[in-house]
This record gives sequence, C-alpha cells and structure tokens, in this order.
Amino acid sequence: MSAHGPSPALFFETISGFERTEALRAALELDLFTIIGTGRRTAQQIAESCQASPRGVRILADYLTILGFLQKEGENYLLTPDSEAFLARPSPAYLGGMVDFLLTPQLEACFRRLTDAVRKGGTATSEEGTVSHDNPIWVAFARAMAPMMKLPSQLLAELAGGDRQQPLRVLDVAAGHGLFGIAFAERYPRAHITALDWPNVLAVATENARRAGVSDRHALLPGSAFDTEWGGPYDLVLLTNFLHHFDVPTCEKLAARALAALAPGGRALTLEFIPEADRVTPPATARFALTMLATTAHGDAYTFAEYEGIFTRAGFARNEFHPLPPTAQQAVVSYKA
Amino acid sequence: MSAHGPSPALFFETISGFERTEALRAALELDLFTIIGTGRRTAQQIAESCQASPRGVRILADYLTILGFLQKEGENYLLTPDSEAFLARPSPAYLGGMVDFLLTPQLEACFRRLTDAVRKGGTATSEEGTVSHDNPIWVAFARAMAPMMKLPSQLLAELAGGDRQQPLRVLDVAAGHGLFGIAFAERYPRAHITALDWPNVLAVATENARRAGVSDRHALLPGSAFDTEWGGPYDLVLLTNFLHHFDVPTCEKLAARALAALAPGGRALTLEFIPEADRVTPPATARFALTMLATTAHGDAYTFAEYEGIFTRAGFARNEFHPLPPTAQQAVVSYKA
Repeated sequence: MSAHGPSPALFFETISGFERTEALRAALELDLFTIIGTGRRTAQQIAESCQASPRGVRILADYLTILGFLQKEGENYLLTPDSEAFLARPSPAYLGGMVDFLLTPQLEACFRRLTDAVRKGGTATSEEGTVSHDNPIWVAFARAMAPMMKLPSQLLAELAGGDRQQPLRVLDVAAGHGLFGIAFAERYPRAHITALDWPNVLAVATENARRAGVSDRHALLPGSAFDTEWGGPYDLVLLTNFLHHFDVPTCEKLAARALAALAPGGRALTLEFIPEADRVTPPATARFALTMLATTAHGDAYTFAEYEGIFTRAGFARNEFHPLPPTAQQAVVSYKA
Repeated sequence: MSAHGPSPALFFETISGFERTEALRAALELDLFTIIGTGRRTAQQIAESCQASPRGVRILADYLTILGFLQKEGENYLLTPDSEAFLARPSPAYLGGMVDFLLTPQLEACFRRLTDAVRKGGTATSEEGTVSHDNPIWVAFARAMAPMMKLPSQLLAELAGGDRQQPLRVLDVAAGHGLFGIAFAERYPRAHITALDWPNVLAVATENARRAGVSDRHALLPGSAFDTEWGGPYDLVLLTNFLHHFDVPTCEKLAARALAALAPGGRALTLEFIPEADRVTPPATARFALTMLATTAHGDAYTFAEYEGIFTRAGFARNEFHPLPPTAQQAVVSYKA
C-alpha cells in the first residue's frame, strides 16, 4: 500500500516478469554488455557493433537501465560494477553462459505447466521431470553453471577445515561439472577425488579437472548414484545440489549409502538451498522450492530440521548447519561418529 | 555492489523473471487469493478448496509470500492489502482477468523474439505486429484491461475541467473497452460520446456503456481510425493508448485528423506512457517502450517533446503535459487555438 491506498504495482511488475527474462536474454545474445565494456556507449555505436537497429538498441538499453544493469549519462550507456563483473565476456566471472541452462526450453516448459504442477504436487511434464536417467540437460547444466559454482565450492572446501597436508579421500556424488571435488583437490594437495556421475556428464568434470591441473588426483566412477557401488572408504562424501531433487525417503537412502562409504570419523558435506523453518527466508534461498515443484516429481528446498532428520535416521551421529555467505546456499556437515 | 563486492543477485532475479510470471498466473488460475480471502489459510485448507496438492500449494504460497503477495504467520497465509484489493475476485478492482490479455500467447511470442526485434528495430513476428486490422487481440484487450482503465479514464475526464452542465461532443478514437468516453459521459451529464473502433471491439464498448447507463449518449462509428470519416465537429477528441503503436509521421496524420474534426476552441486529449526526456524515468512509464519494440513495427513511448512536435506540426496551437498520479500514465492536452 502506498500513500494512495492499495497499489497494483507489484501485480504489474510480477506478471511482466517474462519481459525481464527476455530483455536480459536479448542483451546477452547481442553481447551488449561486452560491447559497452569496449567503450561503445551510444545506441548508434552499440548498434553498429552488433549489427542491430539503433532504435532497437536504444529501447533495450533504456530498459536495462531501468532494471539496473546499465547507467545512462546523456546518450551514453555505462556498465554498472555488477554488469562489468558478471555480464561482460572478458570478466573471469562472466555468467552469460548460464542462460543455456537457466532458459533451456525444457525448464521453461516445466514452468509453463506450473498450475498443473501445483495441482499434482510435482512436475506436470513427465513422471520424473528433469531427474531422468542420462538426461542431456545435465550436460548443459554442467557446462553452463560451472562459473557460478566456483565460489560455493571454495567455501565448502574451506568449511571442511583440518590439516591441508594430510591425505583426504573425497567422493563427489553427482559431480556434474566436478567443481566441488576439484576445489577440494586444489585446497588439499594430497586429496584424491572420485567423481560419480553419468558418463556424458563426467566428460565435463574431466575437462574441468584437467584445466585445474588436478587430473592425476581425479578419478571417475561412471553411473547412477543409486545403482553404482560407491566404493570407499572415504573421508568426505560430497552431496552438492543433489538431494533437493528427491523425496525424503530417497534422500535417506542416499544418506545411508554415504554413511556406508565413509571411513570412521568421516563426514558427509551437503550443499543445498536450505531455507529457515518459515520456508520464506532468506528469499534467494527459499524461492528455489518452486523450481523443484515445477521441474521434479518430489524435490524440495528442505530445511535444516528436515536434513537433520534425514541424516540422523540414516545413522549419522550429528549434524551442523553452516550458511555460506555471500552465496544463497548453505551447508550441512553430517558426522559418521 | 554489496559489501562483498559485485553481486550476481540482479542477474538471477531478472533471468528468472518468467518464474514470477508463471507463479502469479498459477495463483490466479487456481484462484488462490480468493480462496485465502474466504478464510482458508493453511496449505491443506487451500488445497482442498482448489483440488490441488497441499505440497504444491505450500510451495506456491511460500513463493508468493517471498514476492510480497501474501503474508505468512506460522502455517497460515494471509492476503496483503494489495492482494485483497486487486487479486481476490470479490473486489471491484479485481485485476486477475487482465492476464487473458497480458499473457496472451501472441504477446509472449513477440517477446520470445526480442533479440530479432532489437536487430530489426521493430516486432519480429510479422510486418505489423499486433497493430493489424481487426486483430482479435484487441477484443481480448478490451475485455481484460477495462478494470485497469477505470482510474485513468476518470482522471482524464477530471482533467478536461470546465462546466459539467454544458453540452460536450466527444470523439473516442480507438475506443476499445470504451471506458474513456464512458467516463466523460458519466462526469458530464450532457456529453455525447462517439466511439470509433473496429466493429468487433465496439461490441465490448457497447456492453460497458450499457452497464454504465450511458447508452443513450454513446454512439458508434465502426471502422479504422485511418480510413473512417471522423465526422464532427467535436469539443474533445480522445487519443488514449493509441499513438504509441505508430511512428511519428503516422501520429502526425492522426493528430491532423483530430484537428480537422475539432470545433474551434476544441482540444485533443492524449493519454499515454510519456517518459521524461531521459527515457528511463519514471520506471513504470519508461519500460513500456520495450513492449512497443517487441509487439509493433514502429511504436514507442514518446516523450512530451516528441508529442509536442507531433501536435504542433499537425497545426495545434499549444500543448500541455499532465502527470496522472497514482497511475503510470500521463496526458497531453493539445489546443486547436
């Protein structure tokens, strides 16, 4: 409510959310932020650089200014510090490639059937949603999301603590891009990582391990996390952005497999979107539950109390909760004994 | 930038904009706000009422809480004052029906080709975009958008000023839902309105005139604003949410037709999204330009200086700019002499 009484502003802002998505997608497809970063600043100059219409560029750039991605001074558009860091290609933190995953038609199709998903209590697009065997979406995910996982993976490796010179046996379950295991290999020079995932996805993890120079300590365990023998014993089992796809009994099964694969004194490290008990804070964490409703049959953003129940019932001795600022994610450390 | 340095928060918030659209669409399709308004407040109670899954409702309602459409107290979801006013069906200001127009597949398709529209400088979906003859989208528009036009139409009628008991001849160009002309009929008991639009759209205006009890002073002029004789003379010509679809020369032609149809001392009243000269403020006004880029060949959110040029070149003597708070729209009053 404003001074004028109730306002429809939030309704309009929200219902037009898809316009924002499309504006940002268009800007990334035209590489507008990179172009502005090279000093082309007027609509005319930018349009020449990306073979677009000056009028089209002007309207798009004004819209991006309104959203906060650009600053406008007279006829010149300038990058904000955030846009320079994340949306211009020369930046090592460039996130534009994530669009290939975040806006993949399969995910969008899931959201377009959200009403049906609410009725059903899970994705309306298929029995399993995105969690199907060898779904190519996870290769797209592994390639697209890696830049975003750098910071959380480093924070998780720091969280593990301990003597960095000791040997460390790490199982990276559903490794995907492999960045979590790789971060442990980088931080712990004597760590050996075993990356478990479908073979097509492990190809991406292998590339990333090579790029990080840790290939000699990065072994592959191709297959499903449910059917493959996990081997071991390990000092650490990493469950990163994996449990949210499943219902509680399935999470318990995975937790039990982790327990069985751990050496005495070992720990499971779970990285997840873990909202407070109210399930609506922090916002960037809590809203992930909707993605799970839209895209999976039973997935969720579980609270710490729920993860505590899962790991305790699976036989873990105790659990700790750790926020990982500035990311929107949190960690649970579960102790075998 | 936050205390932590550059943040990708705006990128994530924006790229996921379509999720917000779909969440709000789902809530309206399930009539969730109306249900909560009747006192069903837990996910279980709401789910029973709309034959949905409690888990699905819980996740959707949490997401709507995060966005600010609901408040959550324990397990209870409550309407905000804004949601009660605009999103629960019993409210006379209910806006949920607007979704039929705002999310019509044709408009969404325009936005999905936004990159091409930026390249081309106009809609990528057809030569004319939504501005094609007798396009059925305008019937959907006329039905869906009427609730939103109530306030601006009243503000425009107030702006006209003058003696309310004098006769007033009003031409409502591209009348659509007819609400603008009807507001003049309501405010000026001796006003006669002539509503010009395509015949299929005028059916909606006629319904609304009947509902307002002004049918006897509401005449129809079926046809295109470009080809039909406008008749006259009129004291007022209303150009509401119409000029934004066209390029400047076309606007000038329409302004010239308005001038020719006006009696001496008559005025053209233009209601539009008219941003400041910087084209990025006020935000809710300025962002309309992107909709015109996506959906029309040449449309725009013109500034007051541009409208001044249009009406002056068409022969009007002078122009005044009027904001219409609390709406996001503005008016230009153009004087014949």
